[in-house]
Amino acid sequence: MRGVVIHGAGDIRVEDRDEPKLLADGDVVVRVVAACVCGSDLWGYRGVRDTGDPHPTGHELVGIVEQAGSGVSSVAVGDFVIAPFSLNDGTCQACRNGMPSACDNATFFGAADPDGLPIDGAQGERVRIPFAEASLVAVPGPVDDDLVPDLLALADVMSTGHHAAVSAGVGPGTVVAVVGDGAVGLCAVLAASRLGATRIISMSRHESRQKLAREFGATDIVEERGDDAVAAVRALLDGDLVDAALECVGTEESMRQALGIVRGGGRVGYVGVPAGGPKLPVGFLFGRNITVGGGMAPARAYIPELLDDVLAGSLRPGRVFDLELPLEEAAEAYAAMDERRAIKVLLRP
Amino acid sequence: MRGVVIHGAGDIRVEDRDEPKLLADGDVVVRVVAACVCGSDLWGYRGVRDTGDPHPTGHELVGIVEQAGSGVSSVAVGDFVIAPFSLNDGTCQACRNGMPSACDNATFFGAADPDGLPIDGAQGERVRIPFAEASLVAVPGPVDDDLVPDLLALADVMSTGHHAAVSAGVGPGTVVAVVGDGAVGLCAVLAASRLGATRIISMSRHESRQKLAREFGATDIVEERGDDAVAAVRALLDGDLVDAALECVGTEESMRQALGIVRGGGRVGYVGVPAGGPKLPVGFLFGRNITVGGGMAPARAYIPELLDDVLAGSLRPGRVFDLELPLEEAAEAYAAMDERRAIKVLLRP
Repeated sequence: MRGVVIHGAGDIRVEDRDEPKLLADGDVVVRVVAACVCGSDLWGYRGVRDTGDPHPTGHELVGIVEQAGSGVSSVAVGDFVIAPFSLNDGTCQACRNGMPSACDNATFFGAADPDGLPIDGAQGERVRIPFAEASLVAVPGPVDDDLVPDLLALADVMSTGHHAAVSAGVGPGTVVAVVGDGAVGLCAVLAASRLGATRIISMSRHESRQKLAREFGATDIVEERGDDAVAAVRALLDGDLVDAALECVGTEESMRQALGIVRGGGRVGYVGVPAGGPKLPVGFLFGRNITVGGGMAPARAYIPELLDDVLAGSLRPGRVFDLELPLEEAAEAYAAMDERRAIKVLLRP
Repeated sequence: MRGVVIHGAGDIRVEDRDEPKLLADGDVVVRVVAACVCGSDLWGYRGVRDTGDPHPTGHELVGIVEQAGSGVSSVAVGDFVIAPFSLNDGTCQACRNGMPSACDNATFFGAADPDGLPIDGAQGERVRIPFAEASLVAVPGPVDDDLVPDLLALADVMSTGHHAAVSAGVGPGTVVAVVGDGAVGLCAVLAASRLGATRIISMSRHESRQKLAREFGATDIVEERGDDAVAAVRALLDGDLVDAALECVGTEESMRQALGIVRGGGRVGYVGVPAGGPKLPVGFLFGRNITVGGGMAPARAYIPELLDDVLAGSLRPGRVFDLELPLEEAAEAYAAMDERRAIKVLLRP
């Protein structure tokens, strides 16, 4: 089969790889219907993080179950499934408490499972998925091809944007600002709107993203950064700050921005993968009573609820995909996102 | 009148001071019935923080309103009042949102109000209190003298312990650990018990405090620290960690302890005044989806609810006072707390 492999910064190749097969009773093998490139894939692509030895890439997919181990009963051969970007055992304390992304045995595409057995990347034709029983979500069929982008978005970006909003306590009437206008930030706008936020400020400098943010429910756009952004938010809100800031980038600068625009007693929900290990200033948080929550989204826990809305037609997060390419053109997909020519690229094997 | 003044590390004096008087329409003058010494007063006493010029001390009091400005209608001359440790304007965004301790004009005993007018310390015979309308809580009279310790505890330590528990989302069934066995930590145990926590681990090494922790609702005591404490918690909980850790000290070590004993997806509520500016490791929080909330307690927002329980006899936080001294012996009160001969000392002018 064909699969995407990263060999180093800027070096994305589509290669022949061994066909995946069942290695344990809890495995399934899925034929990938669609995968995509994530903003977090770009840390390695840009050389911000060392890529290490060549390895398969991608952690978002939807597909059809082709083989299922004897220990799997929650999905069956022929099912159309959504795979959350992190796989979980379903039994540890975090899983039992609804936080599968903090699973003691959390396992990822392109890595190895707890038994040391390799897992292919999601950007490929097929993949073995361990912990299938607890991790996968079956979509009731038949699945209309038009829905594929929306379903794929639930694997990561929509669940992650939702996590930012949930972690920041967004609900009816909340005044929200979203830091970051990548696919996750845009989905955070959509999530905040869905949860009933009345005012949603998208902090974006890119016209195409501002446009989608408004379609997703943003009521205001702030282009400024730093202290100017704080002043711009106050100008919009009659001198006030926001109840909830959703940090969807992961840099020290973006976290500082989020902390600066939130009111005393407010909340920051953060989902940007920390790049460079920003630290939170406890003294500042203490004096302003700001709650900070978030992290790697428990996508598996959120997908069923979000899926209901997608199937009902009331939630269309797939609009973040503004470019679709065949899997063979994965290198161009990475380049298009790196150069911000595309918000998010969908890949079809 | 007589009032307590700190002249430097270890140098507490009771001195003659000018009688306070009304300086603005929003002021009242209160005759102090009881005040006390706070663990945070010890930072200066121990020389951990520079004390600066000699200044009046204390930020916890209950008393009788003797004079009231024309702008004050929420309390009247003759009322028995509880003063929260921070005074707030009642009109800013944080106040309107129930977080008076993050008030834009937050004002403190022993400092100056926003107009630059000095405020005496709470450890004295009388004190001018600005922002009285929004800050003070009247206790329906007559007030039994036996209730004074319980009412005084609401001014800070009980409200602060409650804030730790609320910030950590403690509710029915929560499994809690409390880091710190000072008066605030003990009140956090009591607050967690009141909110319905089923398992409350007090991390304490002092027999008298362990005893009071158990009286307040602690189900278990852990004396270990660091990695040994994590192992001890796991041993108590069949391998699990706690849902909520209440950090009631304020050091980097105590925050690390709190983060180490909380499960993936759990919450840390912190109320220890940060000493030395600990920073929170975002990477660790991200991977484990730990929410951190808290800060300076919005005592004014909590007092009415807690007062109801004190008046009903179901909440007795005053038991943290294990020594009572006349105001003139304030120096001994500080020494007794510094040397851990007393948990918390009540002072009677």
